[in-house]
Amino acid sequence: MRVGVLTGGGDCPGLNAVIRGIVRKGVQEYGYDFVGYRDGWRGPLEGDTMRLDIPAVRGILPRGGTIIGSSRTNPLKHENGIRRIKENLAKQEVDALVAIGGEDTLGVAARLGDEYGIDIVGVPKTIDNDLSATDYTFGFDTAVNIATEAIDRLHTTAESHMRVLVCEVMGRHAGWIALHSGLAGGANVVLIPEQRFDVDQVCAWVTSRFKASYAPIVVVAEGAMPKDGDMVLKDGSLDSFGHVRLSGVGEWLAKEIERRTGKEARTTVLGHVQRGGTPSAFDRWLATRFGLHAIEAVRDGDFGKMVALRGTDIVRVPIAEATARLKTVDPGLYAEAGVFFG
Amino acid sequence: MRVGVLTGGGDCPGLNAVIRGIVRKGVQEYGYDFVGYRDGWRGPLEGDTMRLDIPAVRGILPRGGTIIGSSRTNPLKHENGIRRIKENLAKQEVDALVAIGGEDTLGVAARLGDEYGIDIVGVPKTIDNDLSATDYTFGFDTAVNIATEAIDRLHTTAESHMRVLVCEVMGRHAGWIALHSGLAGGANVVLIPEQRFDVDQVCAWVTSRFKASYAPIVVVAEGAMPKDGDMVLKDGSLDSFGHVRLSGVGEWLAKEIERRTGKEARTTVLGHVQRGGTPSAFDRWLATRFGLHAIEAVRDGDFGKMVALRGTDIVRVPIAEATARLKTVDPGLYAEAGVFFG
Amino acid sequence: MRVGVLTGGGDCPGLNAVIRGIVRKGVQEYGYDFVGYRDGWRGPLEGDTMRLDIPAVRGILPRGGTIIGSSRTNPLKHENGIRRIKENLAKQEVDALVAIGGEDTLGVAARLGDEYGIDIVGVPKTIDNDLSATDYTFGFDTAVNIATEAIDRLHTTAESHMRVLVCEVMGRHAGWIALHSGLAGGANVVLIPEQRFDVDQVCAWVTSRFKASYAPIVVVAEGAMPKDGDMVLKDGSLDSFGHVRLSGVGEWLAKEIERRTGKEARTTVLGHVQRGGTPSAFDRWLATRFGLHAIEAVRDGDFGKMVALRGTDIVRVPIAEATARLKTVDPGLYAEAGVFFG
Amino acid sequence: MRVGVLTGGGDCPGLNAVIRGIVRKGVQEYGYDFVGYRDGWRGPLEGDTMRLDIPAVRGILPRGGTIIGSSRTNPLKHENGIRRIKENLAKQEVDALVAIGGEDTLGVAARLGDEYGIDIVGVPKTIDNDLSATDYTFGFDTAVNIATEAIDRLHTTAESHMRVLVCEVMGRHAGWIALHSGLAGGANVVLIPEQRFDVDQVCAWVTSRFKASYAPIVVVAEGAMPKDGDMVLKDGSLDSFGHVRLSGVGEWLAKEIERRTGKEARTTVLGHVQRGGTPSAFDRWLATRFGLHAIEAVRDGDFGKMVALRGTDIVRVPIAEATARLKTVDPGLYAEAGVFFG
Repeated sequence: MRVGVLTGGGDCPGLNAVIRGIVRKGVQEYGYDFVGYRDGWRGPLEGDTMRLDIPAVRGILPRGGTIIGSSRTNPLKHENGIRRIKENLAKQEVDALVAIGGEDTLGVAARLGDEYGIDIVGVPKTIDNDLSATDYTFGFDTAVNIATEAIDRLHTTAESHMRVLVCEVMGRHAGWIALHSGLAGGANVVLIPEQRFDVDQVCAWVTSRFKASYAPIVVVAEGAMPKDGDMVLKDGSLDSFGHVRLSGVGEWLAKEIERRTGKEARTTVLGHVQRGGTPSAFDRWLATRFGLHAIEAVRDGDFGKMVALRGTDIVRVPIAEATARLKTVDPGLYAEAGVFFG
Repeated sequence: MRVGVLTGGGDCPGLNAVIRGIVRKGVQEYGYDFVGYRDGWRGPLEGDTMRLDIPAVRGILPRGGTIIGSSRTNPLKHENGIRRIKENLAKQEVDALVAIGGEDTLGVAARLGDEYGIDIVGVPKTIDNDLSATDYTFGFDTAVNIATEAIDRLHTTAESHMRVLVCEVMGRHAGWIALHSGLAGGANVVLIPEQRFDVDQVCAWVTSRFKASYAPIVVVAEGAMPKDGDMVLKDGSLDSFGHVRLSGVGEWLAKEIERRTGKEARTTVLGHVQRGGTPSAFDRWLATRFGLHAIEAVRDGDFGKMVALRGTDIVRVPIAEATARLKTVDPGLYAEAGVFFG
Repeated sequence: MRVGVLTGGGDCPGLNAVIRGIVRKGVQEYGYDFVGYRDGWRGPLEGDTMRLDIPAVRGILPRGGTIIGSSRTNPLKHENGIRRIKENLAKQEVDALVAIGGEDTLGVAARLGDEYGIDIVGVPKTIDNDLSATDYTFGFDTAVNIATEAIDRLHTTAESHMRVLVCEVMGRHAGWIALHSGLAGGANVVLIPEQRFDVDQVCAWVTSRFKASYAPIVVVAEGAMPKDGDMVLKDGSLDSFGHVRLSGVGEWLAKEIERRTGKEARTTVLGHVQRGGTPSAFDRWLATRFGLHAIEAVRDGDFGKMVALRGTDIVRVPIAEATARLKTVDPGLYAEAGVFFG
Repeated sequence: MRVGVLTGGGDCPGLNAVIRGIVRKGVQEYGYDFVGYRDGWRGPLEGDTMRLDIPAVRGILPRGGTIIGSSRTNPLKHENGIRRIKENLAKQEVDALVAIGGEDTLGVAARLGDEYGIDIVGVPKTIDNDLSATDYTFGFDTAVNIATEAIDRLHTTAESHMRVLVCEVMGRHAGWIALHSGLAGGANVVLIPEQRFDVDQVCAWVTSRFKASYAPIVVVAEGAMPKDGDMVLKDGSLDSFGHVRLSGVGEWLAKEIERRTGKEARTTVLGHVQRGGTPSAFDRWLATRFGLHAIEAVRDGDFGKMVALRGTDIVRVPIAEATARLKTVDPGLYAEAGVFFG
């Protein structure tokens, strides 16, 4: 049995831990061979591989990034993409694939499996934690820890100068990082993409915080949006929600708060710092177990499935089902956090 | 409504986050008053209280320890203990208690509720993560992160000197911290209290690791025990399993490995470092939510219950049931990790 | 003897450690009284004080910020500012001042001492490490550690996506943070305010790094400037060098690199995260010793002096001399680091 | 020109940064070749080498340990040791050596240079910071940061339980780590090898701390010793000062404090955690500069010298002089810290 492994989409701490788990168990317990496909779907599309054996995975557990590279290549958008992948798998005698990725990567995996009969097991990956069907995805805990530590640091400088500090964190479509790090960091306002925010309400919270002689921290997800009336942005900075936007909602909001409350406001944009570097212990544990269970699914011939976390158990769910719906922040959960706002 | 809050047993990062959650929601949403009972059950036993209002809980979220103190006082072992507690609650016009603690503290809480009609809501707390009925307890993630970071550091010094490094972590009756940090840290051997270990097997793993030109890291829970044949300990160091034992299993094991393999071995005992200091983001999130849900249970009059984590939900379970059984490491989970040993 | 203490200018980890050192030694060894002047020079200007005794400084050593607040108030710009300060000191029976601050705060201190006969001892404070007369200032080491950790994290995400990552760090007039963190983080390009940079040279380094199959990290001080030919900025983003500028040089440079090399580039702006939170061990040590030596200078009646670090010794230098010249990065030192560029 | 590089003695964060600095500058600026000698003096003694070029040093800056291994081999104690080294250097066409190590390694280097005419440049390395002639050695700052973080964590658990916590840190002959981390961590007692301690005085400090309603943290260097009257140790645990001694002074002291004050005391022994893992930013900076200046000394033919830090400058001093005297804690500096004891 020869198994191909690929990682697609954005960087996420824990990718290497998944790869190591797959290879260690696959080689040692099942006697499998592995090939690493380089840069996501580009690898099987172009037949670009690298050695992936026990020595190759030594020491990679604590390292961020992915030793086999990643990309956003979508083979469905390439002419004869599917045929080329099938030919390359055949030529390289690869019997099955483990695809580690987010919505896009797994969406391709689901179609390759369902429509073209390629044997694939999926491993969910999104720093934003917005895949349904799994309680958590690896990388998320690391991002939340990094954002929380930043918020911790911002508190003291906010207090010393009695300024508003706005911290923009990742989360284009779901506010999980903002909500978790905001709550863990003791932020006074948390704004998420799931609910358009009212700048006047934000300013009221900011003002009430100052009245209690404390300085406010506002955590805002990069995808959070003000209500319609506030959308007249002359510089168009909210138009292009690239992943690290420096003229993004954080900066815009700081300016609005300054304008409306007369208080100084400053912005920090954490950007890629949140998705690089060594994974937290939780993410290493989760990613390692995802790897072990993914190769077990291959051994069981249980293709078209994705591993997922439910409570403390790793389970298997159909890939297609898992990616069908974005997991956004539940309004009740967001309301629960509201007790700390202002 | 006036609610008493107490924290019992060993220190655990997140206790202050629970207290803050209870008080913020209780005061702001329900208009309750609070009293802090000092030093666990000693507080209500002796009527020793402290102010617990919004200003008292400001800034405590990121701090380890507990602002209301803790102890291992067991009122059931004091003459007229129950009567004195009931009298003090009545005198101080306290209508309900929130008891934050582990097996012992909650065991008392269950009996005070069931047998003596005191209105109590429980919040589970154990650094060891060994309470059944909840997926995780706060403090555990922090301890695992600290132990993992220590193991990360031990790797390089092990490699540079080709030595065995033994890292003793907490866990008297359950090996959760050892298993999680061992897996997350890439340890080569993980020994837990649930399975007596075979020193010869450990030495075989150690030797095989050296043969692969790598230096082994052995993570051992403080409560792990060798098999019977190995128990002849002349200095009796395994007899007294105090929580930070310096002549404990770690030191003993390092000596045995040196004796049997001829390789140098060194021990690190992390001790209380694992249970102090600022909580991880996960633990702040979990502890805060436990606090919010505990005071909600009080509001609902749902006494005799303990809050618990199931997946991503906070649920309520009977206190008595929750403490009935120690949650130990599942043999299947331990076996799953075995692929990384040696 | 009653001594007033004030902290002026921007936030800096270690301010509280200085205050604690002053008060502990002053009270315990010399029997002095202290008053804390709130918010820098605003305190003595308006006679606004707070209690500053042993209990007030308990537990503040590891905390960022300053318990007595800070501001950029300049009493020389207030009508009768000097007279009001002298009156308030007299009214509050304050015999001497310890002023902790940067160029501006100490500049005022020097004039109050030299021209108006107020007894002042200075403690240097600048996150940017740009005060001559002292080898290091506290806060700098913390900022460098935070920036270095961020650069560490950016490496893996740069490698995984083969992108350029630009990290903008503090340093308006001096490139110390950029140079130290860039070297410590293994950056491939470090740009500092002391030398205008050539974007084509930066692009050449970036390209050569990619040719070696690695992804480049560019560290740029917020005050770094391109050479004249590159200054035609249509959006004017380099005009207003506010301390956390989101349309600053980092973002501008990333866009230029993209445009000229065709490679994707992303920016992270660390902002206030660098100057908040708990100080590093070095900064706690340095700040504590500055505090101990400042109060010793008061005891010796050695006014008009500032404490400074020379090697491992704390010495005293005239305040006026110390602030006369900005300490910028030596061209030789910058050239030394050049071996790692590209 | 071909240059050999070796690292001797105990592990120290920053070794790889030195090696990288040497190789990057040596290859890129001077066109030198390098050979890595494995495991300290064992390498040239046995002619055991490894490749050491630009690719070999990629990515090693943030890693603890040493990629070329280390040992305590002393060629002066091997028959014909010197002759064998000279023969191997000749055979491998190595023109000069850079020896990175502590007192022992550099002591050998001095003799090989002075008595046997081998061209050697030294780089000082000691985690304990006890080499005279240099203000600081790399690795020390990392160790102090790790110990300080541990002390920070111990504070909260000490306060919550009103216990004494004893933290044993490295330092066999010099108390630098204990003094710096004790001061930075806000310890209440710091005990160093340079001054025998009086257990009754320690107990008096402990008791006075409890009277102020705080719990004491005692930091003790592994080489600290009680005064003679206290030396009757029935278990002989103070006799063998191995580097991680679990029946060491920390445990002994905790027991004595318990016995004499009646207060609970617990011990943490940080051990090898202090010398492994990624270096702090300061240590990466210092180690990198040591490397750059060491190869510059080779280029200048300035042999028999060691690089050293003086203030912010890297200077060269005779190796023999540098290792002649142990740099211990100055009594005045220790007395200065005494204001925080008790």
